[in-house]
Amino acid sequence: MQIPSKTIQFSGELTMHRGGTLVAPTIAFETWGTLQGKGDNAIIIFTGLSPSAHAASSPKNPSAGWWEDMIGSGLPLDTDRFFVICINSLGSCFGSTGPASVNADTGEPYRLTFPTLSLEDVAEGGFEVVRQLGLERIHTTIGCSMGGMTALAFCVRHPELGGRMISISSAARALPFSIAIRSLQREMIVKDPMWANGNYTTDAPPVTGQRLARKLGMMTYRSPREWEQRFGRERISLEMHSDEMFFGDFAVESYLENHANRFTGQFDANCYLYLSRASDLFDLAEHGGSVAAGISRLSLERAMVIGVTTDLLFPIRQQRELAEGLRAAVADVEFVELDCIKGHDSFLVEMDAFRPVISRFFA
Amino acid sequence: MQIPSKTIQFSGELTMHRGGTLVAPTIAFETWGTLQGKGDNAIIIFTGLSPSAHAASSPKNPSAGWWEDMIGSGLPLDTDRFFVICINSLGSCFGSTGPASVNADTGEPYRLTFPTLSLEDVAEGGFEVVRQLGLERIHTTIGCSMGGMTALAFCVRHPELGGRMISISSAARALPFSIAIRSLQREMIVKDPMWANGNYTTDAPPVTGQRLARKLGMMTYRSPREWEQRFGRERISLEMHSDEMFFGDFAVESYLENHANRFTGQFDANCYLYLSRASDLFDLAEHGGSVAAGISRLSLERAMVIGVTTDLLFPIRQQRELAEGLRAAVADVEFVELDCIKGHDSFLVEMDAFRPVISRFFA
Repeated sequence: MQIPSKTIQFSGELTMHRGGTLVAPTIAFETWGTLQGKGDNAIIIFTGLSPSAHAASSPKNPSAGWWEDMIGSGLPLDTDRFFVICINSLGSCFGSTGPASVNADTGEPYRLTFPTLSLEDVAEGGFEVVRQLGLERIHTTIGCSMGGMTALAFCVRHPELGGRMISISSAARALPFSIAIRSLQREMIVKDPMWANGNYTTDAPPVTGQRLARKLGMMTYRSPREWEQRFGRERISLEMHSDEMFFGDFAVESYLENHANRFTGQFDANCYLYLSRASDLFDLAEHGGSVAAGISRLSLERAMVIGVTTDLLFPIRQQRELAEGLRAAVADVEFVELDCIKGHDSFLVEMDAFRPVISRFFA
Repeated sequence: MQIPSKTIQFSGELTMHRGGTLVAPTIAFETWGTLQGKGDNAIIIFTGLSPSAHAASSPKNPSAGWWEDMIGSGLPLDTDRFFVICINSLGSCFGSTGPASVNADTGEPYRLTFPTLSLEDVAEGGFEVVRQLGLERIHTTIGCSMGGMTALAFCVRHPELGGRMISISSAARALPFSIAIRSLQREMIVKDPMWANGNYTTDAPPVTGQRLARKLGMMTYRSPREWEQRFGRERISLEMHSDEMFFGDFAVESYLENHANRFTGQFDANCYLYLSRASDLFDLAEHGGSVAAGISRLSLERAMVIGVTTDLLFPIRQQRELAEGLRAAVADVEFVELDCIKGHDSFLVEMDAFRPVISRFFA
């Protein structure tokens, strides 16, 4: 578990978007740089499904963050100019309250008694951080992947904060192919007998289901083109599978195995299930009756939509549609199509492509 | 189980391409039309991973076949002109010997004692049918999906048969993305405790793993674009999941559920594992040291390569590469790129697109 540098707690109950309440949930976050005014230089970042709030290193936590090359002195999110806040999603397991957290009323983890999670609730977690930090405006809201949908939820529910928005490899709502992928990942986990209807213990989680889900995840986070260049039909003798007949002939299988090994134990299975379903359920059209109506409720002076041509999970046409939709309500909208080969994950790994674009936005 | 109309049996041992032997294995097949000469009008079809030899209805088996609209009097594979043979793959479970068949030596199913299966062995099954039917030539060899790779194996090993080849939504070898998909499907099955190291009984197969694998299969057999048009974000209340929290919100989930239900029990899990791995292992480059060398061993007078732009499993660029490669050794090569939205499965369901192309080939 990564240690978030900061937390806030809701002072009372949080009423969830789709019903139910949480008593005084905690939201973990990290910040970099120095706040000016009431938020004039504040950048808030909503993450994808699995990252923590540790987007960059800091004196308190010097380990590299998931966007280490993006945030810092002289970097695109320049901490000499900006006060950068990264929010750990409500429902996650890196400091914010989630299904793995202990419910103070029962002394037991919430597990499946956690109410249905929506990205609107995740956005509200971010808003509570903003409120308790005393901010009244936001310079720019940034969301990557699932976080891009959270950013839309945040901006549509809090137009009073104004500012700008950058959506990265995200969408106004998920397509059926992406829903199918995530639904199958969830099914892999709940069909693992170790899941035990959500009542597994932390030392005996549904590792088999989680590993399968992670492998399917990797297939949709990267791209066939990348793997063709990287692995081709390279053979490998995969030791851990040496006694099995149906695996481990190819380098790509070893790559997936290693990724599954690294992820195992990092993310709580129930938290994953809640956040994954929240990604499917989000629909900007719920805010006004259509995506266009949702967009008309935004109060942004500027937006940038960045997508990658090889993204399988949030295809480039969704980025184009979002940018075109935003033009109806936002004066200055830029659409950036990047031809990176690393698919959906490009924003995490193709820094040379993303840095100049983000730098230009803040120039 | 579907009943094949015909079977042949190898007279002795079949030595497998990657080692091991089978004693007098059976190959199931069906035929339509009337043979002329020594094969002057013979068309042989190699299938994808899961279909049986029942490609079209016949007096003996009037149920519709998997290519019913393609084979028959006046249809593209015109049974008034041609003698059409469809081969059930060795290793399958629709009449040909496979891991689910009883090993006469032991009185038990082969299960995992079945030797490693290669598409070269599947091709040899087809050749034995041809031989026992007394054919010395083939007019055209057709392969769809995995069957396209089997067709290449057949033609490269038996150039003496000559003739023509149609490759449909296939390739000279699998790409790492397709290997990753199939490897994960296999892992879903073997990680199901019911698989029991291959020793499940027919009344208690690893249904959970097979259903997961089938759902992932459907995702790669169709296309995101089709599902967007067909389902969008249509909601549904899926009865069988009514007591589960993480599924069944969307029509696309119901569609996958229904497909998984229909497939369950139809295909033996071990047979699936063997055929799936055989698809990964096939590489035309094994026949001569490179794909080009393999192609140079073919002795075809004409070839057609058909692919679909939305195919995720055998991308259109693989079809183009195969066609370009074939041009070095085959005088008359036509590459046909079809813009169907139904992805890899288009050759089974987009008959209006495929029929004219196949008709033109035989005109």
